[in-house]
Amino acid sequence: MCESNAYIITSGKEQNIIEGVALMEIKGSLIRLVSLFGEERVIEARVKSLSLVDHKIILEPIS
Amino acid sequence: MCESNAYIITSGKEQNIIEGVALMEIKGSLIRLVSLFGEERVIEARVKSLSLVDHKIILEPIS
Repeated sequence: MCESNAYIITSGKEQNIIEGVALMEIKGSLIRLVSLFGEERVIEARVKSLSLVDHKIILEPIS
Repeated sequence: MCESNAYIITSGKEQNIIEGVALMEIKGSLIRLVSLFGEERVIEARVKSLSLVDHKIILEPIS
């Protein structure tokens, strides 16, 4: 299983927004995250980093 | 192993730019990709999608 967890940085801290992300799609400033469990989140943010070793997708708010 | 391969869409086709990506970092319009094998690429592009099921990171040129 290679899914990752997605976090958004809020006040300098990583806040988990969705677990088990299988798919991420970006359109303009919107990021759509879909988990293996069928959960879906659409969030206005930017991708900061992705670590497939740590299974972490890090997003940051659009300032 | 959860690394992914990164592709950039050129003339509507996916062109492989680096394999075995373990880390991706984004700063402005620059995307830095680092593979498990120590290979590194920095490319001016945007992330279009990420499929952790297909192990694919899809980038698109900045138009």
